[in-house]
Amino acid sequence: MHIEAVRWQDGAVEIIDQTLLPHEHRVLRITDLETLCEAIRSLRVRGAPAIGVAAAYGMRLVAENFVRAGQEDAAALRNTLQSAGSALAATRPTARNLFWAIERVSAATPAAPAPVAAILGAVAAASAAVHAEDRAACAAIGEHGAALLPQSARILTHCNAGALATGGIGTALGIVYAAVALGKVVHVYADETRPLLQGARLTAWELDRAGIPTTILCDNAAAALLARGAIDCAIVGADRIARNGDTANKVGTLSVALAARRFGVPFYVAAPSTTFDLALASGAEIPIEERAAHEVAGKTGDTTTPAGVGVFNPAFDVTPADLISAIVHEGGVIRPPFEVSVAASLAALQRPR
Amino acid sequence: MHIEAVRWQDGAVEIIDQTLLPHEHRVLRITDLETLCEAIRSLRVRGAPAIGVAAAYGMRLVAENFVRAGQEDAAALRNTLQSAGSALAATRPTARNLFWAIERVSAATPAAPAPVAAILGAVAAASAAVHAEDRAACAAIGEHGAALLPQSARILTHCNAGALATGGIGTALGIVYAAVALGKVVHVYADETRPLLQGARLTAWELDRAGIPTTILCDNAAAALLARGAIDCAIVGADRIARNGDTANKVGTLSVALAARRFGVPFYVAAPSTTFDLALASGAEIPIEERAAHEVAGKTGDTTTPAGVGVFNPAFDVTPADLISAIVHEGGVIRPPFEVSVAASLAALQRPR
Repeated sequence: MHIEAVRWQDGAVEIIDQTLLPHEHRVLRITDLETLCEAIRSLRVRGAPAIGVAAAYGMRLVAENFVRAGQEDAAALRNTLQSAGSALAATRPTARNLFWAIERVSAATPAAPAPVAAILGAVAAASAAVHAEDRAACAAIGEHGAALLPQSARILTHCNAGALATGGIGTALGIVYAAVALGKVVHVYADETRPLLQGARLTAWELDRAGIPTTILCDNAAAALLARGAIDCAIVGADRIARNGDTANKVGTLSVALAARRFGVPFYVAAPSTTFDLALASGAEIPIEERAAHEVAGKTGDTTTPAGVGVFNPAFDVTPADLISAIVHEGGVIRPPFEVSVAASLAALQRPR
Repeated sequence: MHIEAVRWQDGAVEIIDQTLLPHEHRVLRITDLETLCEAIRSLRVRGAPAIGVAAAYGMRLVAENFVRAGQEDAAALRNTLQSAGSALAATRPTARNLFWAIERVSAATPAAPAPVAAILGAVAAASAAVHAEDRAACAAIGEHGAALLPQSARILTHCNAGALATGGIGTALGIVYAAVALGKVVHVYADETRPLLQGARLTAWELDRAGIPTTILCDNAAAALLARGAIDCAIVGADRIARNGDTANKVGTLSVALAARRFGVPFYVAAPSTTFDLALASGAEIPIEERAAHEVAGKTGDTTTPAGVGVFNPAFDVTPADLISAIVHEGGVIRPPFEVSVAASLAALQRPR
């Protein structure tokens, strides 16, 4: 398996266009900010860690284009970077990693009197660090999480928290890959994840490439699977985690957590430290993106539902911390009570946040 | 609103082909048993009460065709009816109403020495009674259930338990229609109901025709809606209800019930008495249909998921009785403890069972 959802390549941001998978594996070479913002908004690149990496490279792209154009006004470059950060931050509201990455690169930008070359160098280094750290975080999450799995594990997951969603091997699926590398036997049950089918299209695709036995199911069948005793643990990614452990993730995660609790199955969240937002006391403060009606009802001319009917289409939901058995990040496994353990575990990390 | 999912018309069984809705409203005129069985298997006619009515009319169709062909051997007709009952019973395994209707018509068939005309007359009368009683049961369920709703009610439903699913105005949606007739203000939130989208296609279609405000959502968004306090009660139909109140209904119902419980929202089941199976001690004994993988993954050449990936596609799940606030049938509202109240409530009914 070698999947790079996003990378910096020869002066451009390259992404796998995930709207085309699994039918077509096309790499888009993006050379301007507007195209990158559109790619994030339309989920060509998606997954909280991956859009963080993409945004960091977006800042680098803006700086490179500035220098390539022969411009030398450092103040203008700083303004351009600030505007770019705002544009990238406006693409999607929920994933913490996006804002974190923009802040991280912005903070690395040297103040006056640094010349444009120094600014570009700092932005390039910071964006590369965002990517490298995410890759390392995925590997560490995989290692910590794999230790939680039995020798033979039937794992339920929701949406895609794999290589396609990160700068590395994935978070939830990073644990799966790490467990397989340790010789554990896994079977992954992947919720299809309506409306955009990230599970059926993306999780199934990358697990199939890795030769890992996979079964897809409609989101609404997960509770039946859990009720049958067919699952050893559920593992999902996260888009933002509040100080108390409340976790925003792809809509439907809450239902998985409720069913896992009902049927006595551990429910794990896997996410890098960059997904945590300690400024938020609870999940009630996490902004939840609402997306277009046509994602659910079909596009004009191809609707599955009458025109007069409304659509409720939140992209995420919030799983209350009390339904979460553990949160795995690159620093280790956080256990309840999360009100205490989340802040303590993040404080122990050496990583800039 | 005047929707007849199934009817006897001029010597044939007529059904609305529900696989074509909402794009096309086509009535199929079915004149042979095999076509009717295919229509049930492929969900052209669906919904537990409606397939019961269709099966009863299927028995009548077989008797009519026998007589029309000039055959006069009463023993042969009885055999033909028995075979027809077996064929109809083999179409789908979960809905109790299907088996009940076949048994009801079979039991009405007079023994020797009754001539074919007498058998036909009895079968015709019994099948008409099955339909008329289902129509009356829907109306009564509507009346009993409407009394449970507040003056202004935001109602979550799953799949389609409306006119399209029954011989009358519906069960869950029968309550909605009855509440509207009483001057109550309702807004229905309809789970789209993957994989076949009975909510987005059918519930939305019939509510839209009735002028009732409706919003559809992906099944996995229902928990988020309940978490927001946006729902006053959930109402669903049923395919089979065990003696202890455990209820099999369209897959995903269990998730709705779990989320309703978590967020303190009443969860009601609406079904005619013909849906109850007192021979079963609990939901563990209810046979659950598994349907074809392509319903989830797409047909060959149009798959959303890689070919090597498995599919779990149960058509139903079982909601444990402890998650159910009340069961509404034509005899009234059954409340916990269901171990006692279900049998008592059915015993009080005058209806043949």
